Amino acid sequence: MRVALVGLGTVGTGVIRLLDANRELIARRAGRPIEVRAVNARDRSRDRGVDIARFDWADDMMELARRDDIDVVVELIGGSDGPALALARAVLSAGKPLVTANKAMLAHHGLSLAKLAEQSGIPLKYEAAVAGGIPVIKGLREGAAANEISSVYGILNGTCNYILTTMEREGRDFNEVLKEAQELGYAEADPSFDADGIDAAHKLSILASLAFGTQIDFGAVDIGGIRSVSAADIREAAALGYRIRLVGVAENRADGLFQRVHAVLVPMHHPLASVEGSLNAVLAEGNFVGSLFFSGRGAGEGPTASAVVADLIDIARDEYGDPFAMQVEQLAKRPKANSGDTIGRVYLRFLVQDKPGVLAEIAAAMRDAGVSIESVIQRGAHEDGAVLLVVVTHDTAERAIRETLDQLAGSDNLIAEPVVMPILG
Amino acid sequence: MRVALVGLGTVGTGVIRLLDANRELIARRAGRPIEVRAVNARDRSRDRGVDIARFDWADDMMELARRDDIDVVVELIGGSDGPALALARAVLSAGKPLVTANKAMLAHHGLSLAKLAEQSGIPLKYEAAVAGGIPVIKGLREGAAANEISSVYGILNGTCNYILTTMEREGRDFNEVLKEAQELGYAEADPSFDADGIDAAHKLSILASLAFGTQIDFGAVDIGGIRSVSAADIREAAALGYRIRLVGVAENRADGLFQRVHAVLVPMHHPLASVEGSLNAVLAEGNFVGSLFFSGRGAGEGPTASAVVADLIDIARDEYGDPFAMQVEQLAKRPKANSGDTIGRVYLRFLVQDKPGVLAEIAAAMRDAGVSIESVIQRGAHEDGAVLLVVVTHDTAERAIRETLDQLAGSDNLIAEPVVMPILG
Repeated sequence: MRVALVGLGTVGTGVIRLLDANRELIARRAGRPIEVRAVNARDRSRDRGVDIARFDWADDMMELARRDDIDVVVELIGGSDGPALALARAVLSAGKPLVTANKAMLAHHGLSLAKLAEQSGIPLKYEAAVAGGIPVIKGLREGAAANEISSVYGILNGTCNYILTTMEREGRDFNEVLKEAQELGYAEADPSFDADGIDAAHKLSILASLAFGTQIDFGAVDIGGIRSVSAADIREAAALGYRIRLVGVAENRADGLFQRVHAVLVPMHHPLASVEGSLNAVLAEGNFVGSLFFSGRGAGEGPTASAVVADLIDIARDEYGDPFAMQVEQLAKRPKANSGDTIGRVYLRFLVQDKPGVLAEIAAAMRDAGVSIESVIQRGAHEDGAVLLVVVTHDTAERAIRETLDQLAGSDNLIAEPVVMPILG
Repeated sequence: MRVALVGLGTVGTGVIRLLDANRELIARRAGRPIEVRAVNARDRSRDRGVDIARFDWADDMMELARRDDIDVVVELIGGSDGPALALARAVLSAGKPLVTANKAMLAHHGLSLAKLAEQSGIPLKYEAAVAGGIPVIKGLREGAAANEISSVYGILNGTCNYILTTMEREGRDFNEVLKEAQELGYAEADPSFDADGIDAAHKLSILASLAFGTQIDFGAVDIGGIRSVSAADIREAAALGYRIRLVGVAENRADGLFQRVHAVLVPMHHPLASVEGSLNAVLAEGNFVGSLFFSGRGAGEGPTASAVVADLIDIARDEYGDPFAMQVEQLAKRPKANSGDTIGRVYLRFLVQDKPGVLAEIAAAMRDAGVSIESVIQRGAHEDGAVLLVVVTHDTAERAIRETLDQLAGSDNLIAEPVVMPILG
């Protein structure tokens, strides 16, 4: 099977290395050899540590869609639109199989691309787009396919998890750890896709579609990140028996689809609490299978290449079908659930003036909104006179939390915007 | 797609319930409805809590292999040979797809059955045979297919894990917990397949074949069970920072295939240490993907039915291929590795006389065999005058442990056969 690779960054060179290293084994498993025939990237001359001179260099990536000597195109350019999308459309329109690791493109254009694939009955595969090397696309699309799935959730961004668990271990603050992660190459120069939850939201919207048989609806994901999580939050959460993780949660509710990426408190004994460093993990709850848990390395050259080549092997074996587990027209269009109805315990952290009446004001706002308090922790004043006040609520509707915050919005007693995190489970 | 179910025990009725409950969703995902057309079981009249009068009753299960109105046969009889094997051969020989949950049959006859499937180019699927609802067959066969896998290991028998974790939680002994588990229906009246590690060994031999591209070699599995694990072992292990689990380990070593099912000490922070009750879990180590971890419910009506129907959906979608990931003739025949070469730390528990010189004798035997001791725990005498002596070694070759035990074999100082458990990783 002759493959064209477009994009020769970390993942692209990883795919070349993997196909070199495991060539014989892959041929046995795939039923035929899989070889790179042609490549294209922005820069032909950059030293990538792998020999690319043995492959055809395609000056125009778009020609790869039409070439008869290419059986599959692998898109590793990235970006939701632009060249990646143009290439994907051209490849599928030409009736050629496409493998991609591009979650942004799938979150925005996955259904239209799947329709193109359907029209020609050819594969559009994307295991590497979510959770790196963990076969969670396959786990949902096929492994759990017999189940009505009520929720799918997990740790979908390795950079955020690396930052949070480093903050946890070393007691350091976000900005400091982010800077170090950037220097080490674990975080991008522009960290917003990771740190603000957008990357995890792309992935979550894809998982939700597979899990629930619904149309991808990235626009309906409520997205939060980890910039507002402080070392103090991690410390207070630990004292209460929790760890803080950026978790994407999707639920198929009676009133619609609930999708949210947010920093949450995870109980110590929960499987997600043990997910450290750049690992990813996904849980799905099925009505017959119960809870399924998958974890592993969610990013990096090796794991992502592993997922890309797994897709190639499926194609070589002729084992593939509808990209989103069913025909696109079968995917249900569901409204966005009212997140205010979400019931759960909530962690609130206030930074307040060190003066009388502050706790009274906050407590009154919660009482007026009908929020019942489970515990309150107030630590002595900071160096700057500010006081950290942590409140954990009993089960409460999130709309009541919003009412509380609205009521406190103008208060002189608050030094900073309150930080709100749901408590998982 | 018209299905015949043979065997209407827990799993068979679970499949009927699942297909009833999730009918519409499954039709969307499978691309066509999946319906039970005919059934067969030993007893037609037994009340199973599901209506089977609406299905054809096949008086002779063998006729199902030949019937034109049956597209797939699901074998849920169990047993490595006998009727299950006769049915499987007849179905595949007739060119009809087969789904089975029968690990014993696959461990013994998997390759010859796979050859029959290959000859007709039809599916032989068996996701339910290993780890119940966890899609670990798919995870290895497809998800990790790009990798050279060095080891696959995990908790493969829910009954043993239930017994061990109950012993752990309640400080009770094996026989007592087994009896209770039998009364609750969690363990069979004849517990040997579970408690002696045979069931886990069946599953391990299947996983090893998929992971390594080798022929199934059940006869080469070293098999131990959990009957010799005492409440005292669990207590001592806990004091040392370990939990005891029955773990199946398969490694693709330079000198051959290492396969063993044994009670082992698992470090508290290892993912397998958190696997509680009847859950199962599997880890695989790939040369590009790194460590993959899957867990979930490994037995019971719902999870097993989920796996059976996932197979049916794959067949309905026409997404299937070689049962053991490659053509049978491509599977390597590997010798059995010399387990004496296995290097690791080992837990030894002796029950000894309470008199001078006992420790000296044991320590001398270990010294003579070249076994280096990491720690020794001796607790005060039992009520019956016996003393519990626990030794943890440094890394040592297992042949040296055997030499130690051989040397001690005739000793009057030992009250009972020593208990030996490897320490994981």
